[in-house]
Amino acid sequence: MQDLQAYTPGEQPADKRIVKLNTNENPYPPSPRVIRAARTFTAARLRLYPDPVSRKLRSKIAEIHGCGIENVFAGNGSDEILALCTRAFVEDSGSIGYFIPSYSLYPVLADIRAVCKNPVALGAGFQWRMPGGYSASLFFLTNPNAPTGILYPKAEVRKFCASFKGVVLIDEAYVDFSREHCMDLALKYKNTLVMRTLSKSYSLAGLRAGYAVGAKPLIEALFKIKDSYNMDALSQTLAHEALSDIRYMKSNVARIRKTRARLTESLNGFGFLVYPSETNFLWVKPFRISANQLFERLRERKVLVRYFKGPLTGDFLRITVGTDEDADRFLQVLGRIM
Amino acid sequence: MQDLQAYTPGEQPADKRIVKLNTNENPYPPSPRVIRAARTFTAARLRLYPDPVSRKLRSKIAEIHGCGIENVFAGNGSDEILALCTRAFVEDSGSIGYFIPSYSLYPVLADIRAVCKNPVALGAGFQWRMPGGYSASLFFLTNPNAPTGILYPKAEVRKFCASFKGVVLIDEAYVDFSREHCMDLALKYKNTLVMRTLSKSYSLAGLRAGYAVGAKPLIEALFKIKDSYNMDALSQTLAHEALSDIRYMKSNVARIRKTRARLTESLNGFGFLVYPSETNFLWVKPFRISANQLFERLRERKVLVRYFKGPLTGDFLRITVGTDEDADRFLQVLGRIM
Repeated sequence: MQDLQAYTPGEQPADKRIVKLNTNENPYPPSPRVIRAARTFTAARLRLYPDPVSRKLRSKIAEIHGCGIENVFAGNGSDEILALCTRAFVEDSGSIGYFIPSYSLYPVLADIRAVCKNPVALGAGFQWRMPGGYSASLFFLTNPNAPTGILYPKAEVRKFCASFKGVVLIDEAYVDFSREHCMDLALKYKNTLVMRTLSKSYSLAGLRAGYAVGAKPLIEALFKIKDSYNMDALSQTLAHEALSDIRYMKSNVARIRKTRARLTESLNGFGFLVYPSETNFLWVKPFRISANQLFERLRERKVLVRYFKGPLTGDFLRITVGTDEDADRFLQVLGRIM
Repeated sequence: MQDLQAYTPGEQPADKRIVKLNTNENPYPPSPRVIRAARTFTAARLRLYPDPVSRKLRSKIAEIHGCGIENVFAGNGSDEILALCTRAFVEDSGSIGYFIPSYSLYPVLADIRAVCKNPVALGAGFQWRMPGGYSASLFFLTNPNAPTGILYPKAEVRKFCASFKGVVLIDEAYVDFSREHCMDLALKYKNTLVMRTLSKSYSLAGLRAGYAVGAKPLIEALFKIKDSYNMDALSQTLAHEALSDIRYMKSNVARIRKTRARLTESLNGFGFLVYPSETNFLWVKPFRISANQLFERLRERKVLVRYFKGPLTGDFLRITVGTDEDADRFLQVLGRIM
């Protein structure tokens, strides 16, 4: 335990003038239904324990995805669900797989669980690549991937789920910004969970609400080891409200996709390589300046983006798609730097 | 994992006419400061990630207990802290100790962690009893104890902390209802954590907020393995408000202690054995009726208390001290039954 490297979240600056394009937060506020529910919540209810199994929230999720409530687990952010999976589905002698690069929390979770890591390197252009005979106890599959923004071909994902011997968790944190999802695979294969979060498309990173959908035995295994009351009463209520206003979420997603297209075009204009994004961020290789240098120059000018050093990611920046005003400010600053 | 027995929380009935004396909730609402903060919370802030290390909340806790922020861990309810302790302080070949009877979650946590349980049976009157040469990796010490309500002599607790080779977690969930606490032991001994919750005395069971105080290396060990964002933004804010109004908490505690004294006296009047309670509940051995029978009779008449079957606890009922009106109703129903 002494050598454990903790996960490093993106920084949260106090300076409000900063254009914050570093943690893939949604630039728009949550649904007015969430805001109304927060204002009118009977705080006196907080004296009572919350529903330990989040029934009302899980019913809503089941209704959305056309499955049973027994196919749904709700967690204190999808981070909690990831951590539970490492304990529910991996024996001490087992291993955890994931693509590199993908979400940098996965290896940290494997270290915390003290089991082997069995990462798979993506292709040179970050495309899907799965070696024959690959095995692991649990595979974390981010789709669309982060930090690259790339959506994997669904046929590949399906083939993988069908043949993999361990449990596959498809982490669809960014899927609402994408053209395709894999929820049907969770309801088809006994070894596959699909996970969603309210942090990105629903603008609720501060609330900590995520969920996983899959076969009943997988969901039950998570319930057996979760904390007794993992979701507080307010989170259950506000998450329910957010999921009852999918139209609002979709209208924000549409705005972000529009800004994403404009930003992509402008960065192409600077000669930058921009990967086709199916998320709310861009994976960008700068031109005539190193990624690290550009990161620093932007930072000096109060624009925060994310830089991951290392051989696979060190030539790139991950830039969250904010509002149109954020994009204007970012492009203006970038113009001055270049 | 197949054989794991999940923890059974007390039931939460939908029927509002029920007198609910079964889960040790506070009958009074949380501080007006909490209610105000909930109403005025800028829900748009929820689009941003919360502070991953709950700095503002931990500073307030450090101020209350006269320690440094590095001596404080804040968790998604004290349940989260208990689970983290089983992973941070117990090797795979280690063991977890606790008194029997005490909080029924402890053996469940040991099973989830798949390590040995090393329970210590209390004396015949549920008093402190520690066999010479006793050892474990981690000891969960509820003080005052639940479900008995008994406070252990501080000299015994101190002696135990000073000589025990593993980590001691003193679970002071009910300590605000008590005449004495052990916070100084957490700041004195390198192996001792003291844990508090906002669920009971602060009337915030629905919020999920607890904390542990202790030596920096113990606190750091918990931070290394916690979920990245374990406390949501609203919980951090509301917990901070609650802890900023200790006077309100103390006035509620005073009311509950008064009701507790009255209830104790009345139950003695029925010939019941009532242990001296230092908590917000009573541990009661009925007279002329078995505990189980009385539990059922009360339940039929819409009064819910808690019954734990088993050789050590099966002769007793745990009765939460509610409002004076709850006490009146309970005593009236009890009078009819007897």
